[in-house]
Amino acid sequence: MGRWEPNARDRLAQAALDLYSERGFEQTTAAQIAERAGLTERTFFRHYADKREVLFGGSELLEKAFVDSMAAIPASVAPVDAIATTLETVASYFTDRHDYARRRRDVINAHPGLRERELIKIASLSAALETTLRDRGVPAHAASLAAEAAMAVFKVGFERWADTEEEHPMADFFRESLDELRNVFAGKAS
Amino acid sequence: MGRWEPNARDRLAQAALDLYSERGFEQTTAAQIAERAGLTERTFFRHYADKREVLFGGSELLEKAFVDSMAAIPASVAPVDAIATTLETVASYFTDRHDYARRRRDVINAHPGLRERELIKIASLSAALETTLRDRGVPAHAASLAAEAAMAVFKVGFERWADTEEEHPMADFFRESLDELRNVFAGKAS
Repeated sequence: MGRWEPNARDRLAQAALDLYSERGFEQTTAAQIAERAGLTERTFFRHYADKREVLFGGSELLEKAFVDSMAAIPASVAPVDAIATTLETVASYFTDRHDYARRRRDVINAHPGLRERELIKIASLSAALETTLRDRGVPAHAASLAAEAAMAVFKVGFERWADTEEEHPMADFFRESLDELRNVFAGKAS
Repeated sequence: MGRWEPNARDRLAQAALDLYSERGFEQTTAAQIAERAGLTERTFFRHYADKREVLFGGSELLEKAFVDSMAAIPASVAPVDAIATTLETVASYFTDRHDYARRRRDVINAHPGLRERELIKIASLSAALETTLRDRGVPAHAASLAAEAAMAVFKVGFERWADTEEEHPMADFFRESLDELRNVFAGKAS
């Protein structure tokens, strides 16, 4: 087997998700994941630090998508509008990933250790977004609040998108969630 | 040493915080915490499941304070106003805890394992608040968004309160943060 394996990262992520769904996270080893992907255990650990990380290979890309999109919007645009635009851009990242994202979510929710890892990733995303907002001139605390609010919209919109049986554009769910959060702050009863 | 120890929980929490600050979390054992508190290791494990939990003994009380306060507000009150009132009530929970809370925060931020545990506690708090909002008749997704927004205000308000050298009423910081988040959603630039 050569050292270079085409799409090794994705194949490992897919194999891990399949095995975690079939047998459970605890019952699966890195060696088994590598085997299912037709790769070696050494290759697994070249790509992922541990059995949890294999489900979070996209986190850095997602964070980069958030930060790059936000950084590209003129600083004159109000934070809430910049967040709306950023979420539209980020939504495209999930195109054709509906099935994978649904199954991944179910596996993560079934295991506290994976849930913890996900919360850390979201906290990192929130911190990166906060920094980007501050770089736009938004005062520190407002930037922090806006970043947390953006994460709330992202999480709820994502869940709603994942809950649908058939894939609909994720951007629609982000828009809907952002509007709902606006309504909450406008003091609407529901 | 008798089986019943007055304030054992608080004494263990205080001793743990002292030792984590002095030596670091990794370098401290449950036995050392018990010794510093003048208690036995067995007593430690009667009160806390592990070395991390000892810093989160107040989490259930805090969650109860959030839920009880929210549940007591008439359902006719708009969610954002119910959140504002709930945060005012919860703020009183932190009276006279400024020094402890500041030191605890510094210890938690210095250790990823403690940070993960804290994120899980906040996620649990958010879920409890979401359920309480749904019980008030708020639709599921709006309840989820409002609960996440409440947590954002709580986190940022808490940080701001903890950042001050002298203790000021926490409720002021919650009000300020909630107003800032309202401004963000009203489309204000900063």
